[in-house]
Amino acid sequence: MGILDADLTGPSIAKVFGLKERPSKSPTGRITPVLTRTGIKVMSINLVLDDPEMPVIWRGPIVNSVIRQLYWDVDWGSLHYLLVDLPPGTSDAPLTVLQSLPLDGVIVVSSPQELASMIVTKAVNMAKKMNAELLGLVENMSYLTCPHCGKSINVFGEPQGEKLAKQLDIPFLGSVPVDPTIARLSDHGQIEDYSASVFQTVADELRIRASQHAQQLMQGLPIAWSIQPSES
Amino acid sequence: MGILDADLTGPSIAKVFGLKERPSKSPTGRITPVLTRTGIKVMSINLVLDDPEMPVIWRGPIVNSVIRQLYWDVDWGSLHYLLVDLPPGTSDAPLTVLQSLPLDGVIVVSSPQELASMIVTKAVNMAKKMNAELLGLVENMSYLTCPHCGKSINVFGEPQGEKLAKQLDIPFLGSVPVDPTIARLSDHGQIEDYSASVFQTVADELRIRASQHAQQLMQGLPIAWSIQPSES
Repeated sequence: MGILDADLTGPSIAKVFGLKERPSKSPTGRITPVLTRTGIKVMSINLVLDDPEMPVIWRGPIVNSVIRQLYWDVDWGSLHYLLVDLPPGTSDAPLTVLQSLPLDGVIVVSSPQELASMIVTKAVNMAKKMNAELLGLVENMSYLTCPHCGKSINVFGEPQGEKLAKQLDIPFLGSVPVDPTIARLSDHGQIEDYSASVFQTVADELRIRASQHAQQLMQGLPIAWSIQPSES
Repeated sequence: MGILDADLTGPSIAKVFGLKERPSKSPTGRITPVLTRTGIKVMSINLVLDDPEMPVIWRGPIVNSVIRQLYWDVDWGSLHYLLVDLPPGTSDAPLTVLQSLPLDGVIVVSSPQELASMIVTKAVNMAKKMNAELLGLVENMSYLTCPHCGKSINVFGEPQGEKLAKQLDIPFLGSVPVDPTIARLSDHGQIEDYSASVFQTVADELRIRASQHAQQLMQGLPIAWSIQPSES
């Protein structure tokens, strides 16, 4: 499993996994990603900055070439999945990822506000325009369980992920609650200690889709799930 | 009062004010902004798109020229304040705004997570590098009051806006709670119906700073608060 943090101007992946080590050069001359405690290979711009608090003040063309480098110049080795974390919206970074990486599909993350739905709809329409496969929609911050009284609070309005997924004609993968534990573990670099059944459901759904793709391959149909970057 | 929505890939301003009308051409040939119910002049890319759900799939250079157009080609008329709403991070849009608009200052919005602090710190460092005046920091989503039991929940961790502002050496303007009412009113285009004392405090703070700038002007010092775009 690998994670490429393509959110160059708001990179969060290194921090939530507690990574501070710098990536090293691999024997092939490429960059070796940093391993998390559970063995996930991570590459993020924040791992190579001298000061993680310094901004990258780059115009689009540089953003694009850096994202391509984070993919092609990194020795990802053998992976089952490579997850590319994108900033919200339809800006340069997602555009580059959709255009220049051999992507197998897009997972869309929404939140309950209609405002978020509108922006997610834009992103889905962008992915459709570029013929990217939409693997499904996850609703984040769906509801909060009050730690004092145990009742459910619709912090950002009524959950509507399922409805939105139907409107957009893509599979609904699950609802993730607002959970103060996620914030705490992220801040302490211990996100791998978090578990919730919804993530298992999402992972199972995606695994099923992946194996369907593998079956298509065996039947001689076009393969959409090739993970390893080809040598450039 | 005017609002320029410079978040081209996630434009939310038109929606939260319930605006659907298209901006018209002014007699001068420039574009007349759309008025909200309380008389705020709004300009957003979503007001000129045929379908607000279609994405703008533009590379940085176009993003930049569109932001400049939303400022210079719009007949803002006489304004006390023009608020420019920016996407998070240090991408092309904030860079363009800092470089090409006659900005008087930057208000930074954080949330309690250390993760957000890191990204906000990057943005503040970008603004400092570009010699923009930092008017202060507002902490958003600081806490939530449970609508069932009335107790306070630190949804995203301990509030730390005041501490963060001190670290960054900028004024702390106030803490905005997570409030389901904000989500509901935004989704219904009625954000102007929302009031909370913290916004009054923030507005008062900013007004004081503005009048200090005006005093500097009267003393012959360089003015930092000129609102009206000069004729281009």
